[in-house]
Amino acid sequence: MSNPSNPIPADLQATLDPQRKSWVESANDAACDFPIQNLPFGVFSTASQERARVGVAIGDSVVDLAVLHEAGLLRVPAGSSGAENVFARAALNDFIALGRDAWRSVRVQLSSLLARDTTSGVTLRDDAGLRQRAFVKLADAKLHLPVEIPGYTDFYSSKEHATNVGSMFRDPKNALLPNWSEMPIGYNGRASSVVVSGTPVRRPNGQLKLPDQERPVFGACRKLDIELETGFIVGRGNALGEPIACEDAEAHIFGMVLLNDWSARDIQQWEYVPLGPFNSKGFATTISPWVVTLDALEPFRVAQPAQEPRPLDYLRHAGDHAFDIALEVLLRPEAAGEATSISRTNFRHMYWTMAQQLAHHTVAGCNTRVGDLMGSGTISGPTPDSFGSLLELTWNGKNPLELKGGGTRAFIEDGDELTLAGWCQGDGYRVGFGECVGKILPALKS
Amino acid sequence: MSNPSNPIPADLQATLDPQRKSWVESANDAACDFPIQNLPFGVFSTASQERARVGVAIGDSVVDLAVLHEAGLLRVPAGSSGAENVFARAALNDFIALGRDAWRSVRVQLSSLLARDTTSGVTLRDDAGLRQRAFVKLADAKLHLPVEIPGYTDFYSSKEHATNVGSMFRDPKNALLPNWSEMPIGYNGRASSVVVSGTPVRRPNGQLKLPDQERPVFGACRKLDIELETGFIVGRGNALGEPIACEDAEAHIFGMVLLNDWSARDIQQWEYVPLGPFNSKGFATTISPWVVTLDALEPFRVAQPAQEPRPLDYLRHAGDHAFDIALEVLLRPEAAGEATSISRTNFRHMYWTMAQQLAHHTVAGCNTRVGDLMGSGTISGPTPDSFGSLLELTWNGKNPLELKGGGTRAFIEDGDELTLAGWCQGDGYRVGFGECVGKILPALKS
Repeated sequence: MSNPSNPIPADLQATLDPQRKSWVESANDAACDFPIQNLPFGVFSTASQERARVGVAIGDSVVDLAVLHEAGLLRVPAGSSGAENVFARAALNDFIALGRDAWRSVRVQLSSLLARDTTSGVTLRDDAGLRQRAFVKLADAKLHLPVEIPGYTDFYSSKEHATNVGSMFRDPKNALLPNWSEMPIGYNGRASSVVVSGTPVRRPNGQLKLPDQERPVFGACRKLDIELETGFIVGRGNALGEPIACEDAEAHIFGMVLLNDWSARDIQQWEYVPLGPFNSKGFATTISPWVVTLDALEPFRVAQPAQEPRPLDYLRHAGDHAFDIALEVLLRPEAAGEATSISRTNFRHMYWTMAQQLAHHTVAGCNTRVGDLMGSGTISGPTPDSFGSLLELTWNGKNPLELKGGGTRAFIEDGDELTLAGWCQGDGYRVGFGECVGKILPALKS
Repeated sequence: MSNPSNPIPADLQATLDPQRKSWVESANDAACDFPIQNLPFGVFSTASQERARVGVAIGDSVVDLAVLHEAGLLRVPAGSSGAENVFARAALNDFIALGRDAWRSVRVQLSSLLARDTTSGVTLRDDAGLRQRAFVKLADAKLHLPVEIPGYTDFYSSKEHATNVGSMFRDPKNALLPNWSEMPIGYNGRASSVVVSGTPVRRPNGQLKLPDQERPVFGACRKLDIELETGFIVGRGNALGEPIACEDAEAHIFGMVLLNDWSARDIQQWEYVPLGPFNSKGFATTISPWVVTLDALEPFRVAQPAQEPRPLDYLRHAGDHAFDIALEVLLRPEAAGEATSISRTNFRHMYWTMAQQLAHHTVAGCNTRVGDLMGSGTISGPTPDSFGSLLELTWNGKNPLELKGGGTRAFIEDGDELTLAGWCQGDGYRVGFGECVGKILPALKS
């Protein structure tokens, strides 16, 4: 793998060592999403301490960074006010705003504190009182939206997804529109309705245009869908009028989350021409609570698919800019104990890279801000079982999916719980994203 | 005019009295945008006091509300912490969040303080020291973005505009798409690049698809345009999953601004299918600095155009929900001393009302927040000289406009200064919006 635009200093490289183990023993399980190589950032609270603060997931626990900072075990680098506890906040933004050197320094410190052969973490490991204050079991933690999101943009960067949708709704012979291969097509989403995993999602009402009626009717969405996506969090913004070069773009990315871009297909089809999706998407977008840093993903960097035609200059970057992230979608009906895996795919299939997305987003001068969320677009792989939406998996409902334990699904039904999962498979460990879950509530009476 | 959904209490009614005059004599000029009947809210600073705070425009001056509050002359009603000075802030959001009773109470107090026959304002009028601290000449004030904007949505609610654009780019025989007459079509805009009047706007670069070339080229926009719009500011949000009823929607609106939705037509035409405009709009949106409250607009309430077909239930509201706001666009080339008026129209032509826009925006469950900005969409009137964009005024450049003092314009050129103006004409006074101005800088070298 080649990474000319995002050099990794030696101390950071050590945090990626596959051999490193933690004295938090649950983190050493090969199936655990949160080994010491991951160290994803999130925001949490507990029943006994309702004030939300920043934590890092390790094994079956959350480490409270506000407590570590208070205890003098975690320094934030010069440039920020040392006295300020950026971890005693209800969002990651203030920490992220300190810049990449700070993210990396904190990662290096945390990895040292939590390593099995720690010297810096002896106090934390052996002081039962401190450990009790600093560690919370994940099962006891309430996880919050990790960042305050000033802007949410959603891209459309899977060639397979765009081709599938184009085939269904436009012309199978010219499924991919001519602009698609020239730029990472994107649109502005609604930031206010981005919710954290676990938040129930109410089935939306809206205008539905039924084929046998001249005018639309108002009612509950009948074609409720997921979109399996990832999202990246902007870690360093750009000023208005000052684009981010493609080669520099990864340095502006703090990390990634899983993202479910819930979509009301029937509302969408009626409303989206000519200005794009609006109510069909704006009712909810769910993200996973842990932000996996781009640094933690470094060992899983791979080459992006070949791009033909060759992109215009402003979209070029040397090296490898895709990431090998396995993805899965599970559907569990309310009555069923068991979930059915309905899709398995990989982020590496995406045609346009995150760096290209950010370069394109800013090339006309648009500014971005710390905490901005940029969705990948639905991640569909090349095979029918790797599509990232029910629309594609069931081909607009024509081929319903069989569920374990009986029943079928064309689209989502009330009470269904949808889960996205994602992980990078290392040798003997995995860097996981945790889950991105939402259960559907019935629509309001219309 | 009929207004069943927005009842006006008697003390508020008194602030609308056309006969009321101010002891700030410049406010009594019939041509002044800021008479005592207006009292628009904004945020300002001065060279000698750089900290931004909330003010109200009156005549040729700004009244510093933070100073009035400190001096005990302005109370914010119970429900808010009386000790807190919500006016000593760099945005209106905290004041707006106090709710409509607070906005109205402050309006009533300000009108009393500033009225020629004041009793409450005797101290302010006669205490030269206090008056000097509390009043700043508009010419000496730096005006800031009045609100922190969590979300920006742009609608498309002028039938004339949608018909013109549809005729040019789709099919003149079926210019209006079938969904347009059924709902206020809207899309999410980019909140980060909303700037206050006076901020220079850099011509964007982007992908241009030239008719004689197979692939797009990268370069400076050649069809830079304005869109004459108004915007409303959400004063009370709604929770996720809890729509705002059309009949209640006006109570959620704090006030209005002028809005210039700068548009790069060539970038737009190549990028916008299928997900809508993105880079062609995201480089800048300019708003006027003074938020004219919905209360101040009450005397100018008029009936909206007839809506046929009759809207679905969730888009119905009894009474009159349009406003008679005269609008004008001026273009001044860099070299020219003189500006040319290139369009005159009126907000009352808009097919969909602000209340309908807000009801539609939330009907699927999308939440809104205090400070959200909702653009009207380009406001084009029925006659060719009342169109709200150069695209329409010059019919995509085919009929360039003649400028005063020579020269023509198909689209905007570097150095051009574009000004939107708007006002409600009363009997002997006008409730004005001030100006919404932007001057175009050359594109970055591409």
